[in-house]
Amino acid sequence: MDFGQSARSLDHLERLRSFIAAEVEPVERHVRAVRRDALAQRRDATGSWSVSPEFRELQRKAREAGLWNLFLPDPDLGAGLSNVEYAPLAEEMGRSMFASAVFNCDAPDTGNMEVLYHYGSAEQKDRWLRPLLDGEIRSAFCMTEPDVASSDATNMAATAVVDGDEVILNGRKWWSTGIGHPDCRVLIFMGLTDPNAHKYQQHSMVLVPIDTPGVTVERMLPAMGYFDEPGGHGEVSFTDVRLPLDAVIAGPGRGFEIAQGRLGPGRIHHCMRLVGLAEHTLELACRRGLDRTAFGKPIVDLGGNRERIADARIAINQLRLLVLHAAWLLDTQGLAGARSAVSEIKVAAPRVAQQIIDFAIQIHGGAGLSDDFPLAGAWTAARALRLADGPDEVHQGLVARFELGKYN
Amino acid sequence: MDFGQSARSLDHLERLRSFIAAEVEPVERHVRAVRRDALAQRRDATGSWSVSPEFRELQRKAREAGLWNLFLPDPDLGAGLSNVEYAPLAEEMGRSMFASAVFNCDAPDTGNMEVLYHYGSAEQKDRWLRPLLDGEIRSAFCMTEPDVASSDATNMAATAVVDGDEVILNGRKWWSTGIGHPDCRVLIFMGLTDPNAHKYQQHSMVLVPIDTPGVTVERMLPAMGYFDEPGGHGEVSFTDVRLPLDAVIAGPGRGFEIAQGRLGPGRIHHCMRLVGLAEHTLELACRRGLDRTAFGKPIVDLGGNRERIADARIAINQLRLLVLHAAWLLDTQGLAGARSAVSEIKVAAPRVAQQIIDFAIQIHGGAGLSDDFPLAGAWTAARALRLADGPDEVHQGLVARFELGKYN
Amino acid sequence: MDFGQSARSLDHLERLRSFIAAEVEPVERHVRAVRRDALAQRRDATGSWSVSPEFRELQRKAREAGLWNLFLPDPDLGAGLSNVEYAPLAEEMGRSMFASAVFNCDAPDTGNMEVLYHYGSAEQKDRWLRPLLDGEIRSAFCMTEPDVASSDATNMAATAVVDGDEVILNGRKWWSTGIGHPDCRVLIFMGLTDPNAHKYQQHSMVLVPIDTPGVTVERMLPAMGYFDEPGGHGEVSFTDVRLPLDAVIAGPGRGFEIAQGRLGPGRIHHCMRLVGLAEHTLELACRRGLDRTAFGKPIVDLGGNRERIADARIAINQLRLLVLHAAWLLDTQGLAGARSAVSEIKVAAPRVAQQIIDFAIQIHGGAGLSDDFPLAGAWTAARALRLADGPDEVHQGLVARFELGKYN
Amino acid sequence: MDFGQSARSLDHLERLRSFIAAEVEPVERHVRAVRRDALAQRRDATGSWSVSPEFRELQRKAREAGLWNLFLPDPDLGAGLSNVEYAPLAEEMGRSMFASAVFNCDAPDTGNMEVLYHYGSAEQKDRWLRPLLDGEIRSAFCMTEPDVASSDATNMAATAVVDGDEVILNGRKWWSTGIGHPDCRVLIFMGLTDPNAHKYQQHSMVLVPIDTPGVTVERMLPAMGYFDEPGGHGEVSFTDVRLPLDAVIAGPGRGFEIAQGRLGPGRIHHCMRLVGLAEHTLELACRRGLDRTAFGKPIVDLGGNRERIADARIAINQLRLLVLHAAWLLDTQGLAGARSAVSEIKVAAPRVAQQIIDFAIQIHGGAGLSDDFPLAGAWTAARALRLADGPDEVHQGLVARFELGKYN
Repeated sequence: MDFGQSARSLDHLERLRSFIAAEVEPVERHVRAVRRDALAQRRDATGSWSVSPEFRELQRKAREAGLWNLFLPDPDLGAGLSNVEYAPLAEEMGRSMFASAVFNCDAPDTGNMEVLYHYGSAEQKDRWLRPLLDGEIRSAFCMTEPDVASSDATNMAATAVVDGDEVILNGRKWWSTGIGHPDCRVLIFMGLTDPNAHKYQQHSMVLVPIDTPGVTVERMLPAMGYFDEPGGHGEVSFTDVRLPLDAVIAGPGRGFEIAQGRLGPGRIHHCMRLVGLAEHTLELACRRGLDRTAFGKPIVDLGGNRERIADARIAINQLRLLVLHAAWLLDTQGLAGARSAVSEIKVAAPRVAQQIIDFAIQIHGGAGLSDDFPLAGAWTAARALRLADGPDEVHQGLVARFELGKYN
Repeated sequence: MDFGQSARSLDHLERLRSFIAAEVEPVERHVRAVRRDALAQRRDATGSWSVSPEFRELQRKAREAGLWNLFLPDPDLGAGLSNVEYAPLAEEMGRSMFASAVFNCDAPDTGNMEVLYHYGSAEQKDRWLRPLLDGEIRSAFCMTEPDVASSDATNMAATAVVDGDEVILNGRKWWSTGIGHPDCRVLIFMGLTDPNAHKYQQHSMVLVPIDTPGVTVERMLPAMGYFDEPGGHGEVSFTDVRLPLDAVIAGPGRGFEIAQGRLGPGRIHHCMRLVGLAEHTLELACRRGLDRTAFGKPIVDLGGNRERIADARIAINQLRLLVLHAAWLLDTQGLAGARSAVSEIKVAAPRVAQQIIDFAIQIHGGAGLSDDFPLAGAWTAARALRLADGPDEVHQGLVARFELGKYN
Repeated sequence: MDFGQSARSLDHLERLRSFIAAEVEPVERHVRAVRRDALAQRRDATGSWSVSPEFRELQRKAREAGLWNLFLPDPDLGAGLSNVEYAPLAEEMGRSMFASAVFNCDAPDTGNMEVLYHYGSAEQKDRWLRPLLDGEIRSAFCMTEPDVASSDATNMAATAVVDGDEVILNGRKWWSTGIGHPDCRVLIFMGLTDPNAHKYQQHSMVLVPIDTPGVTVERMLPAMGYFDEPGGHGEVSFTDVRLPLDAVIAGPGRGFEIAQGRLGPGRIHHCMRLVGLAEHTLELACRRGLDRTAFGKPIVDLGGNRERIADARIAINQLRLLVLHAAWLLDTQGLAGARSAVSEIKVAAPRVAQQIIDFAIQIHGGAGLSDDFPLAGAWTAARALRLADGPDEVHQGLVARFELGKYN
Repeated sequence: MDFGQSARSLDHLERLRSFIAAEVEPVERHVRAVRRDALAQRRDATGSWSVSPEFRELQRKAREAGLWNLFLPDPDLGAGLSNVEYAPLAEEMGRSMFASAVFNCDAPDTGNMEVLYHYGSAEQKDRWLRPLLDGEIRSAFCMTEPDVASSDATNMAATAVVDGDEVILNGRKWWSTGIGHPDCRVLIFMGLTDPNAHKYQQHSMVLVPIDTPGVTVERMLPAMGYFDEPGGHGEVSFTDVRLPLDAVIAGPGRGFEIAQGRLGPGRIHHCMRLVGLAEHTLELACRRGLDRTAFGKPIVDLGGNRERIADARIAINQLRLLVLHAAWLLDTQGLAGARSAVSEIKVAAPRVAQQIIDFAIQIHGGAGLSDDFPLAGAWTAARALRLADGPDEVHQGLVARFELGKYN
C-alpha cells in the first residue's frame, strides 16, 4: 500500500497550485460576484417579490372566519389565547412555509406587534400597530449586523444617538427579514445610544419608516440559495437617519429590555411552527416511502428506514411536549420563569426538524433536493433557525448557566 | 403541568384545519407552482447559463500550461496519471466548485470521456471524444428517472428499442447534469432494450446529439435552491427519438457493463474533490473563528469549537487516506478489486464534507447561509452527492454484502 | 507515504497468525473459561448475595411510613396511585440502584405482583401475591432463552405441556433477574403449550416454586462485569418439572396475553427510574465539574462541557415529558392506547441515560470507571435496558408500524 | 393532557424524598462501601491474580518461535521493526485482551521498557530492562493521581524530593496498571522535584522496587466492574519512600521529557491493538447476525443492521489507515512530527472500537452483556482508553492547536 506521490504527480501538483492561485482564484472571485449580483438583481427585478391576489383574498377570508391574529393574547385585539392554547394552532400553520402569513401570524410581524403592544405609546400604536393588526402593512426587525459577531449583543456597532429632540441612526444591519415585502412600511432598528450607561441600558429601539431618507436596502440575501420571497432578508444601511425622538420605543436606553421581551415569544412561536414542519415532513417521508418501490419492496421496508421513522416519531413527540412545557411556563411564570425552557426548545426544535427533513430528502431521492417538494426549502428554514434569534451555542450556554447555578 | 387544550383552542384548531385544507392548500400549491416556474424560467432566460470570456481564457491558459485532461490515465490523450497520482490534483481542484472545469476535469464530462475512451468505436471517438478532450463541447449523462426509484437500476422505464438499423428512444430522465451548458452537444442515454435478456444485459447506452428531434429539455432543476449554472441539472423527455444503430455504444445490451465501468472512477473523482472541499471549508472555519470575537474571545475559543476543529481534522485525514486506498486498489486491482472500497468512500466523503461545512456555516453565523461565502453552495454539493451516483444506502448495502460474504 | 509492508513484517505476521491460531487461542479459551467460572463461583459463594440487616430495617421503616407498594394502583393493596402520580415517585427512587427495593417497588417483583393481581386465582394470590406484597419473599421471571433470538417471542423453545392434571416444564432460560436473591421463592415460567393453536394462544405462564425438583439455577450471569447482587441474573434449566395444572396462571394458552399486560407497566416503571438516574448523574457531573480544576479553570468551563450539560438538561426534560405522556395514555386509554408511547420511551430512556452517564464518566476521569461512584453500575443498567424487555430495534419496529399504519 | 400532580402524589413525593435523604442514603452508602470492599478483597484473595502454567508455557513457545519483544525497534534486543512494520502485528495481537502478553508486547511494560531503553543508565538497564525483556518480571507506571484532575499534568501533587544522595517519594497514585501482577517488581513513579524550575523541568521519574518500604498497594480498582486480572489497576500510596539518587531516570527534572517520549509509542500501540479489537468484534457481529434468526430472517437482514455493518467496515478501514499514517510519521519524522497524528488516533481509535463493540453487543442480545463473549470486556477496554493516556478532550485540544497554528 504505497500512497506516496511520484515526482510527476508532485510536479503537476505544484504547477496546479500556482496556476490556481495566480489565475483561477481571481477569475473565480470575479465570476462568483458577478453571478451573485446578477442573480440577486434579476430576482429582485421580477414579480416574485409581489403578493398574489389569491393570497390577499385568502387573508380576507381568514379574517372573516375569525382566524386572525391568533398569536395575540389580548382578547380585544387578538384571539386572547394563552401560549399553551396557541401551540397547536401555530403547529398547524407551521406545516408549510406559507400558512402563517394567511392568518397574520407570521414572523417578524408578530414579534414587532408584541413590541408595540407592550411598549408602544398611544401614538405609535395608532400609527403602526393598528395597520399591522389589520394586515395592511408589514414590518421588519433590524438587529443583526454584518461586521461583528452578533451572537454577542454587546458587539453591536450601529448607533442611535439622541440629538436634542431627534434621534440619529447610523450603521449597517442584515438578515432583516421581511424587508423585501411590498407592504413593508416600518422597521424596528436597534442601536447604541449611551456606551457609558449600565450594560443593559445602553441601547434603544427606534421605529423607522422604510422611506426615511438615509435608509437604503442594499441587497436581498439568499439563505442556502433561497431568497424567501416575497418577504426575504435584506442588508440595510442607515446613514444619518434623523427621526423625532418619539420614534424611540419606550424612550432611550430600553432596547435590551424590549429585545428580551420580544425574543421570548418570538422564539417559542418559531419552535411551535417547527413541530408542525417536522410532522408534515414525516408524513411526506412515510407516504413517499410507502408509494415507491425498490429491490422488490416499498422503500420504507429497506434498511434502517423504519428505525428512522420511529426515531422521528419519538423526536417529534418529545419536542412537542418540550414546547408545550415552555409555553406553560411562559403562561404561568412569565418570561423570567421560562428563560431556560425557551432556550431549550430553541436548541432542540431546529435540530429535530433538520434531521427529519434530511431523512425525508434522502427517502425522496433526487426529488427531495428539487423544489417539487417543500423539503429543500423546509431544510433551509430549519437550518437558518440554528442561527437566527441566537445561535445554538448561545442558548446552550444559557441552559448550562441555569443548570450549574443550582450547585453554586 | 397541564398541557390539555381548552374548548376554545380546540374549536380554533378545528376551524383552522378545515380552513387550511379547504382554502389555503389549493392556493399554496398554485402559488408555489407559479413561483417555481416563473423563477426557473427567469433564471433560464438570463445570462447566468453562459460562459464568461474570462473562463474561456482560463481554459486556454490551463491547456497551454499542460494542466489539461489530468484525469485521463492515457499518456497520449491525457496526463497519464494513475488514480493515486491524480488524487492530490483532484483534491486541489475540489477546493472550489469552479476549478475542475478550468482543467477540463469536470463531471459529467470526465465520466463520459472515459466511456467513449474505453467503449467507443473509432467513429464515435472521432465525433465526440476528440472535441470533448479539446474542451470544445460538453456532454450530459441521462440515467436517473423521475417516475421510479432509480436507486434500483432495474426500475428503469426508458426504452432503447432496436428497430432494424435504427434505435428508438423513449422515456423521461432527470438530474441530467450539465445539460444546460451552452456547449452541451451530446447526451449519453441509457434505456431498456431487451427485457428478456439476462438481468445485466437488458440495457443499452446511446449517444444522442442534443438537437435530435424528440429530445426536449423540459426544465432545469434547482438543488436546494441552486441551479448550478452554467451546467445545471435538467429534466429531459425523449419521444420517439430515432438514431442510427451505430449510436449505441459497444452494441445493444451492454449498458449495465458500461455504467459500472463509468461510475467507479466517476465516484472516486467526486470523493477526491470532496476531500479538497472539506479542507478548504475547515480553513475558512478556522480563519473566521480566529478573526471574529464574541464574549471577549476569538470564536474558536468558545464552547466546543476547538473540539469540532479537531474532529474535522481527524475526519479529513481519515477520509483522504480512505480515498487514496480506493485509488490504489483501482490502480492495482482494477474495478473488480475496488468495488467495496469505492462504495466506502462514496458513503464517507459526502458525510464528512457535509458535517464540516455545517460547522463552518455555524461559525460564520448568518454569513455562512448567504452567497458571500461558498459554504451554502458547498453544502448543497455534498448533500446532493449522498444521492447522486447511488444513495448512501445502496452503497452501504454493497459494503455489507462484501463484508458478510467473508463468512458465508 | 508508504504503508506497504516489508517482507520481514509480512513474515512475522504470517508466523504470528499461525501461532495465535494454533497455540494462543485454545489456551485463551481455556483460561477465559476457567477464570470466568472461578470468578462466578467465588462470587456466588460469598456473602454478597445476602441482604444486610440494615436493609431489612429500612424496609420495615418504609412500610411503617406508608411508603410501600407505591407502584400498585389498587388503593387497598398498594398506594392507589395512577401512573402519572407514580411517575415522580419512581423517578425519585430511580436516582440510585438501591432505593426502589426499599419501598418494595423493584423489578421484577412489581411486574410479577401485577400479573398475580390481574390474572392470579384466589389461591395463587393467597400463596404468592400476599407474601410478595408483604416483602417476605421475592420472585423471578423466566422468559428469555440462551439458545434462540428471544427478541422474536415465537422463537421460544421451552415447553409447558399439559399432561392430565399436571403441567410439565422443560427448557432453559436466562437473564432471570432476581433469581439469586436469598428470598426468591417463586418463578414465573413461560413456555410453549400448543404449537397448533393461534399464534398468540400457544404459550402458558406457570408459577414454579424455586425448589421444585428439576429446577436448577445453573449459574449467575454478570452484565458488563456486574453480578448485581443480591438479586442477580440467572441461567436456569427446567428438566421434566412437574406441577399441578393450577400452577398455570389463568389457564393454558394465555401466556402471550399476560406477557403483554405485564410488560407495559414494567417498561414504563423502568423508564421512570431512568429519568431519575439521568437526573442524578447530571447532578454528579455538574458537581464534579465545578469542584475540580484543570488548565486553570473548573472543568465545566473547558471545551464543550457546558454544551454537553445543556444537551443533557434538554434531553432529560424531553424524556420526562415523554414518560409522563405514556403514563397519561396508560391511565386514560389503557395499554391498547399506549402501545406506541410505551415503546417510544423504552427506546428513548436508556439512550438518554446512557449518553449522560457516559459524559459523567468522562468528566469524572478515571474515578468514573471505578466503583467509587455509582456511574459504572448505572451505565451498565442503562445499557442492559437497551436489550431487556425487548431490544431497541423491536420497539422501533412497533413505533414505525403504528406510524405507517396512519397512511395505509 | 394533564401532567400536573395530585395533592396525594405530591405528599408522597415529599415524604419519599425526606425518607430517602434521612434513611436510605446513609444505609446505601454504607452497604455500597461494604460490598465494594468485600468484593475487592475476595477477588484480591483468590487465584485470579495468578498466572496459569499454560500461559507461561505459551510465552516460552512464543519466545522460541522468535515472536518476542516485537515492539522494540532495536534489532538486537527486540525485533527491529519500524512502527509501520509493527502495526499489523500489534493489530493481530489486539484481537483479544490476551495475546499481546504472550509475546511480551503488553502495556505498560512495553512503554516502561522503552523508557529504560532510551533513558536508563547501564546499571538501570541491567537491573530492570534485561529481566523485563526476558519476561521474568513485570512493571507498573505510576502517574495519575486520585485527588486532582490528572488530565492537566501540572496538577500533579506527588513529590520526588532530592535529599543529598537520596530521593524521597511521597504521594498517592492510582490506575497504576499491572501493579497487581504476581511478577510485578518495579514501578516507575513520577513526582514533583523542583516547583521553581521551568514548567517542563520540575518533575522526575524514579524506578521504585515494589517492595521498598513506604510503598503500599492500597487496593485494586475495577474498571466498569472488571479488575482485569492478573495485572489489574492499583491505587498506591508512597510514604517517605527513600531511594538512592541513581534510581532517578536520566537525573532529576527530566520527568516531562521522558513522559512525552514514553506516551507517544505507548498510545500508538494501544491504537494498533484497538484496530484489531474492532476487526475481531465486527467478525463476531457478522457471524452472530448470520447464525441467529428472528422474524423469519437472519438477524443481519433486519432493520439497519447491514447499514451498521457497512459503517463499521468504513470506520475500521479509515482508522487503520490513520494509525498507519501516524506510525509512518513517527518512523520518518520522529515524535515531534507525529504529535498531532498520535493525538488524532488516540481520539479516533477508542471511539470507533467502542461504537462497533456496542453494536456487536446489541446484535448478540443478552449474551453480549455476559462474559460468554469477550464483548463486555472489550467495551470496557475501549471506554477506558478514552481516559487513559490523556482524555479525548486533551488530545482534541492538541489537534486543534496544531490546526489553528497554521493560520496564526
